Amino acid sequence: MTDYRRLRVALLGAGAVGSQVASLLRQHADELADRAGARLELVGIAVRDVDAKRDADLPRELFTTDADSLIVGSDIVIELMGGIEPARAYLLQAINSGADVVTANKALLATHGPEIFDAADQVGAEVYYEAAAAGAIPIIRPLRDSLAGDRVQRIMGIVNGTTNYILDRMDTEGAEFDDVLADAQRLGYAEADPTADVEGYDAAQKAAILASLAFHTTVPLDAVHREGITSIDKSMMDAARHAGYVIKLLAVCERLNEASGESISVRVYPALIDRAHPLASVHGANNAVFVQAEAAGNLMFYGAGAGGVQTASAVLGDVVSAARRHIAGGVGVGESTLANLPIVPVGRVTTSYQITLEVDDQPGVLATVAGILSEGRVSIATVEQTVVESADGESGVARLVIGTHKALEQDLSDTVERLAASGVVERVVSVLRVEGN
Amino acid sequence: MTDYRRLRVALLGAGAVGSQVASLLRQHADELADRAGARLELVGIAVRDVDAKRDADLPRELFTTDADSLIVGSDIVIELMGGIEPARAYLLQAINSGADVVTANKALLATHGPEIFDAADQVGAEVYYEAAAAGAIPIIRPLRDSLAGDRVQRIMGIVNGTTNYILDRMDTEGAEFDDVLADAQRLGYAEADPTADVEGYDAAQKAAILASLAFHTTVPLDAVHREGITSIDKSMMDAARHAGYVIKLLAVCERLNEASGESISVRVYPALIDRAHPLASVHGANNAVFVQAEAAGNLMFYGAGAGGVQTASAVLGDVVSAARRHIAGGVGVGESTLANLPIVPVGRVTTSYQITLEVDDQPGVLATVAGILSEGRVSIATVEQTVVESADGESGVARLVIGTHKALEQDLSDTVERLAASGVVERVVSVLRVEGN
Repeated sequence: MTDYRRLRVALLGAGAVGSQVASLLRQHADELADRAGARLELVGIAVRDVDAKRDADLPRELFTTDADSLIVGSDIVIELMGGIEPARAYLLQAINSGADVVTANKALLATHGPEIFDAADQVGAEVYYEAAAAGAIPIIRPLRDSLAGDRVQRIMGIVNGTTNYILDRMDTEGAEFDDVLADAQRLGYAEADPTADVEGYDAAQKAAILASLAFHTTVPLDAVHREGITSIDKSMMDAARHAGYVIKLLAVCERLNEASGESISVRVYPALIDRAHPLASVHGANNAVFVQAEAAGNLMFYGAGAGGVQTASAVLGDVVSAARRHIAGGVGVGESTLANLPIVPVGRVTTSYQITLEVDDQPGVLATVAGILSEGRVSIATVEQTVVESADGESGVARLVIGTHKALEQDLSDTVERLAASGVVERVVSVLRVEGN
Repeated sequence: MTDYRRLRVALLGAGAVGSQVASLLRQHADELADRAGARLELVGIAVRDVDAKRDADLPRELFTTDADSLIVGSDIVIELMGGIEPARAYLLQAINSGADVVTANKALLATHGPEIFDAADQVGAEVYYEAAAAGAIPIIRPLRDSLAGDRVQRIMGIVNGTTNYILDRMDTEGAEFDDVLADAQRLGYAEADPTADVEGYDAAQKAAILASLAFHTTVPLDAVHREGITSIDKSMMDAARHAGYVIKLLAVCERLNEASGESISVRVYPALIDRAHPLASVHGANNAVFVQAEAAGNLMFYGAGAGGVQTASAVLGDVVSAARRHIAGGVGVGESTLANLPIVPVGRVTTSYQITLEVDDQPGVLATVAGILSEGRVSIATVEQTVVESADGESGVARLVIGTHKALEQDLSDTVERLAASGVVERVVSVLRVEGN
């Protein structure tokens, strides 16, 4: 056995991911030492209750409630507590005491990222966070390093496993949202309070992290436009399928070339995607990040987005990187926000749309609708009109499914308002953006 | 404009990739400087003929035939000449004169990788080669860094765009190999001499590079089992489709747990893949690398496998990494071959198979065939027997499509030989491995 230098590794948190990280650090100690060029000695695990039941079999003497003492003198601190405080305070303490830090805390990075990266820059420490963006999928290094000589134009990510699981089952089984959600909760794919997932908050945090990195711009969480999937029902799924689409909750990070200069848009919403698009075949709770770069073209990174052991893989990769840097010395280039592009509201974004309306089945209605769209600078690409059946066979109502060319979001929403108030439109059934075309 | 330190960048070769790299280095100079933390000054381009026509508009004074003088005093040397010599000599010269090197030369790395990595280790230089493994797809950093704390179990890669283009068109259009190849040559997807692609030599080089990295083991090119796609015809494609499979040329790098200890297998061959597998939806000239890791589970990396500008993206990512290292100082951990696992011949590999036979349509033939398989330790999973139609309607020949459970390759090939010599088998139509199940 090679006689390696020892590095002291402190772990904060022993939940699903933390337990796996601790187990793997001990189980693969020799192999990790060879890879890192240093022995990674787990010196302690800070928890709230040392006697709580754990997922993994770990020696009791590793556990402590005294995180402060554990952090002092550690070379690498792994933060897997989640939440904002005290995670933020501990990370800053670790950075200021000379440690490199590894975190999977997307909520913290999406809200306090600049503060943490600045603190690390000040003292020449590194912050590793591969597990915070898309679980086990390696996306941080590709964006930061592999594409460092390229220009990212757009990222479309399926970055939340729970919502993809729900939408996928609604699509493949024709099930209703509430039924699948209940099932997902029973199976452990969704939490008792599913708000963070189904309302898109989790995806928005990841979108902020990915956009910051891809566009070298500080993206505050509240600059991310966010819509969840609770309004998606079976009839919308059926209509999407009929038109050759599938509905996915997408995190879209886009570089815009506006007349006033370059800017970016970051948004999370359910959107239609062509079934032939690589993102359409991301099933179950899997995640995928589709990247369009100026030179590299289209790339996709696919894998498990969550799960204790999967996320532990990403954390350990970061720990090995941190150890290699400790051995090699030298400080990397910090998180760059040199570009600092303006972030535009969703109203200034251009996409195509599918608008489904119920209208009076009378002569001239289509002309009226087409006129309102045209006045609103929304150009029609396709129209499909069908008669809505009623019990007595004479509903007097027709259904219009209108596919638009690319239009400005603001124009589109103004136009939909005008349609709703026009007198010929009975009901706006759905308005969905179409991405990836 | 920030006043950055200047790094001298020398480029060897100005073909499709080299011209793009030179253009992008100049075009995005300011942005690259911000990303790298240093100005990347292209000091010269070594070529055989300074007056040859180039793909990009580059100042004539950059070109030189004197590679030796160009290399001396350069901080970063980019080798895009291809071939073994003089590329090998120039790379070693660059390393020994203190430069970090970037190369896209898979033939060179697959044959002289250890020599080049050793030379770099000796002097503390780095060798970057993201573009050598799967074109623009970032796969080196994920394998080397992101998965450094995990254990790769298996890689299945579609790593040759030409053969994927041919097989995909055969599959989707029902076309014959020769016709699609001729078309691919006309369209520039295949070279006039297509041997390197269609016989699997290019894929084998990439397999050797990927396996070396994933398993920390020196994998010489001649340890890679290699079969091409020239024997794949329309009838095999049709049969695969009928059975729910598609045929892909796969580079398989696998960790084996044999009784005698761990070992690896590296092989390139056309194989059947279930249509629901993510690799099955890789169309056209695209590439994808599917990675199964112990903790991370299944990951897939997808993108353009070749092309001048796409490959240039990967090269520039490496140049930025090299520059960051120059600024930061410190030496990374070298290419690790610490594991040095034994590489086993393909005969010791276990996979499942689809065997298609034409047999006499007589009582007892299936029993005889089943008996030979059983004696050969090949267990049958599925059998489909159909009568082969002939002009007069009575061919007396039946077609047997046998799906096997996992069997040892050596057992399988011995068994197929015995079947061929058994007297009841008229013809062994095809034997294809099934991967990804």
